[in-house]
Amino acid sequence: MKIAVTGKGGVGKTTLSSTLSCIFSKEYKVFAIDADPDMNLASSLGIHDKITPISQMRDLIKERTGAEQGSSFGEVFKMNPKISDLPETLSLDYGPDGNLKILVMGTVDKGGDGCVCPASVLLKALLRHMILKKDEIVILDMEAGIEHLGRKTAESVDMMIVVVEPGLKSLETAQRIKKLAGDIGVQNIVAVVNKVSSIEEEEFVEEKLIELNIEMLGIIPRDPAVITADMQGEPLAQYPESSALKSIQEIGKKILNTKIDRD
Amino acid sequence: MKIAVTGKGGVGKTTLSSTLSCIFSKEYKVFAIDADPDMNLASSLGIHDKITPISQMRDLIKERTGAEQGSSFGEVFKMNPKISDLPETLSLDYGPDGNLKILVMGTVDKGGDGCVCPASVLLKALLRHMILKKDEIVILDMEAGIEHLGRKTAESVDMMIVVVEPGLKSLETAQRIKKLAGDIGVQNIVAVVNKVSSIEEEEFVEEKLIELNIEMLGIIPRDPAVITADMQGEPLAQYPESSALKSIQEIGKKILNTKIDRD
Repeated sequence: MKIAVTGKGGVGKTTLSSTLSCIFSKEYKVFAIDADPDMNLASSLGIHDKITPISQMRDLIKERTGAEQGSSFGEVFKMNPKISDLPETLSLDYGPDGNLKILVMGTVDKGGDGCVCPASVLLKALLRHMILKKDEIVILDMEAGIEHLGRKTAESVDMMIVVVEPGLKSLETAQRIKKLAGDIGVQNIVAVVNKVSSIEEEEFVEEKLIELNIEMLGIIPRDPAVITADMQGEPLAQYPESSALKSIQEIGKKILNTKIDRD
Repeated sequence: MKIAVTGKGGVGKTTLSSTLSCIFSKEYKVFAIDADPDMNLASSLGIHDKITPISQMRDLIKERTGAEQGSSFGEVFKMNPKISDLPETLSLDYGPDGNLKILVMGTVDKGGDGCVCPASVLLKALLRHMILKKDEIVILDMEAGIEHLGRKTAESVDMMIVVVEPGLKSLETAQRIKKLAGDIGVQNIVAVVNKVSSIEEEEFVEEKLIELNIEMLGIIPRDPAVITADMQGEPLAQYPESSALKSIQEIGKKILNTKIDRD
């Protein structure tokens, strides 16, 4: 199963992605992929070592896509780079059982170096190529906003989760994501509502999601433990009393049930 | 004076941009520019009408840059498009005195349409071209994260504000922004700390900013009025009792003092 986590910036995509990855890795082999150039999935998993991202492998990108990262816009990329041997070489094992592997798409190394289109092309091909076994799950932590939908980075996912929070801005983004994801053939779009601190906020978002015709997968309460975990650089999964963690565990169960329905 | 507001997704860039725009427009002519493809600056100013973004002006983009938005990556752009007549045609007047003009860079119209590089090129040229009078201020609400620094969209600004919040993730982004902005020649980088709810959080961020050698311009408390304003689709400037608004007013004064120092 391949899952992309999307939404407006700051709604909690990375927290949801990393926490689901921890939860799933107890029973599944998980590939957690940071597809945000402003990457912090590893940090959210408590890993503060540097991971070599795809985008820093200039020779590899050039060889596989025909374009150099950071070169002028005028490059023509090979659209189907050979990537069959990449997943193992690029990932970093993590977790007591080595069941959680982390891949990092890449970042902007130097101001003025250009966009991250070449790295996106490689990641898109990688995702399309990955044929998963029954016990394998891919979780993609997407970049904030909607540009990745122009690039079709996540076109081959089975489920796209849009994270929203109480407020019109993140719901406007959800509406755009639903429309653009439909354009590229992703149909299974569900919402997770994060940072809810009152019944009024919950009802506000629920009502809007019904208007947008987006199914709600679950609600995560506003929880100071999320801020504490971020300040400490620790995974939320290490805070067993966290109400947000408990909600994400429930959401994880629902996702796995969806999977059983699909198989 | 040209100011870019940057930072990790969700830290409050748009709220700060729109509120500063409202405050400054009482004494200055303000161009508020939404440079985020997942645009919501207008919405944050209480404007829910559709504004035609630069990116939707296909003929204009083709004519001025030589590239069609949404075309393959293989286009070569004219790097110095003629844009001298654009600001007035693209902007929307707003505010009782018409002192606040809103421009929108553009979005992704259709999934799979490609990246927003062509629109970025036009905006970058527009910014470089704009020679401001003493009573004019440009406020750029940048896209979340760091890709815009690869594209050098904001290379010609006088001040780059990085919005951070309590937590390592937004501070990691601030560190990247400072480095990348330096690469493209933007030296005047200051931080605004948002969503602070305790002395511990304030001290945590202050200490980190000293480590990063980023000057702190001001602190904005966590304020439920910000969420209420977003849910209502109203500008924060309409909530005179808001503690966040009061802090942003102080930050605005400091920015204008910086300006006087520079002139």
